[in-house]
Amino acid sequence: MRIALGLQYDGSRFVGWQTQPSQNTVQDKVEQAINAFIGDTGSRTNPVRVTAAGRTDTGVHALGQVVHFDCDTHRDPWSWVRGLNSFLPSDIVVNWAQAVDDSFDARFSAFERSYVYALHVGPCRAPTVASRAGYLMLAADKWLDTDAMQMASACLLGEHDFSSFRSSECQSKTPIKTVYDIQILDQKPWVYIVVRANAFLHHMVRNLVGSLLAIGQGKQPSDWLAQVLEAKSRQLAAPTFSPDGLYLARVGYPLEHQIPAPWLAHSWLPAEVIALLQEPVPEQPKRIMI
Amino acid sequence: MRIALGLQYDGSRFVGWQTQPSQNTVQDKVEQAINAFIGDTGSRTNPVRVTAAGRTDTGVHALGQVVHFDCDTHRDPWSWVRGLNSFLPSDIVVNWAQAVDDSFDARFSAFERSYVYALHVGPCRAPTVASRAGYLMLAADKWLDTDAMQMASACLLGEHDFSSFRSSECQSKTPIKTVYDIQILDQKPWVYIVVRANAFLHHMVRNLVGSLLAIGQGKQPSDWLAQVLEAKSRQLAAPTFSPDGLYLARVGYPLEHQIPAPWLAHSWLPAEVIALLQEPVPEQPKRIMI
Repeated sequence: MRIALGLQYDGSRFVGWQTQPSQNTVQDKVEQAINAFIGDTGSRTNPVRVTAAGRTDTGVHALGQVVHFDCDTHRDPWSWVRGLNSFLPSDIVVNWAQAVDDSFDARFSAFERSYVYALHVGPCRAPTVASRAGYLMLAADKWLDTDAMQMASACLLGEHDFSSFRSSECQSKTPIKTVYDIQILDQKPWVYIVVRANAFLHHMVRNLVGSLLAIGQGKQPSDWLAQVLEAKSRQLAAPTFSPDGLYLARVGYPLEHQIPAPWLAHSWLPAEVIALLQEPVPEQPKRIMI
Repeated sequence: MRIALGLQYDGSRFVGWQTQPSQNTVQDKVEQAINAFIGDTGSRTNPVRVTAAGRTDTGVHALGQVVHFDCDTHRDPWSWVRGLNSFLPSDIVVNWAQAVDDSFDARFSAFERSYVYALHVGPCRAPTVASRAGYLMLAADKWLDTDAMQMASACLLGEHDFSSFRSSECQSKTPIKTVYDIQILDQKPWVYIVVRANAFLHHMVRNLVGSLLAIGQGKQPSDWLAQVLEAKSRQLAAPTFSPDGLYLARVGYPLEHQIPAPWLAHSWLPAEVIALLQEPVPEQPKRIMI
């Protein structure tokens, strides 16, 4: 049978999602927990492997990661949750478990991945969000032009070749992705950037955040982002921004799979950001009124 | 000359504020940074020692700690901030520095210390607040009776002997303290407990939180807290709650010292909690309408 899990994790201590020989990845910890739990319940066969909706990078966090795996152990959903949590390190949590049809695939059934970038801006770092928010040093009498950032982001909506925001290590078959929505919430000294798309290239959100911040700081004009996108070259965009503030917040699946919603309220993100993410993605990418 | 500093820190990695032979305390790091900075600027004399408003315990955080020290190095305020931050580890930050009159003492001039306890409640831990919020495991279909907690807290307002909430290691000269205000904010799955007093005994907030949660969970009736207070004995109160969610948020001084406000917005606490802390303490302890 196939089981889907909803996960949250603090990525600070891990070298990303995907399994590596070091074993210090989220995938390794989740697989170890599943195999330990199944072994414990007396039905160990081949080691279980999991497939995730989003292969988050080193230091990137998740509030709504979804994974699936196949096994022949029958347990009720809450028993999976409690059991796996007892084998997981404290920075990874299973929020829900659910039996799903074999047609469900955590990666290939997903039509939406939504990320939030939480950015703290000011003259001094904020130690109580260290490693869980990005940081931009800016003098106390300065602020970002978040309207210019929001305006600039309009060119990204819809289907585009995002090669300009793709890392050289990206393994995606195509640089063409569809961005459904970008929202920039200005809550000085905080900025939250919500980016929703069908899928992302490696480093795409962090590269977009870097370029949007170049505009927000007035280093580049608002229309520069369209030029960068058009160039289809990594040479033009701003440097990749830090992973610290990046959260895989939500993965969207066709309703027929009845996948539970992510446990967004069980995070430190403000209610306004959570409300944005609870809206379904627009069927047509939103048009931004200028 | 005397300098006052406003500090934030993540206490997770430190064995509290007060200096210890291990040197792994916030006070040690701050003194090392000051002495390194002064040495760097070429006027090192005797090692500088600092005095803090609140000697926070192992694992307890600060958003508005205030300290003072004496030295003969003249620097403008922003130069102190930048200079000290360059010598401090990333989990301690100086937000402001200010020259003060010799009559100012960070500890003895303070008439108010306000703490916030940030508590996450639910069936699973929230990894993106680990070590920065307390956690109470509660089934998804259960919730705390926060009205009962608020009602119970009324007996604590005003001047009382708080021996029932005092740890055996407490060094305070007297168990008599004045609580100005207690507010319990219910933002399911979060509870924020704001406690404002002239001063606190060792473990007092964590012991109060433990006892308030016994009432919130229905393990004790609302009027039990008054009995515990009256007993003046540590035997009756609930166990000391975890330090993870405890923040020294604000220290109040007479206006004549012109001490800057704490940088509360530069934290993950929600706007409603920050707004509460920005109100001055009531001249008379608030009465709670029942």
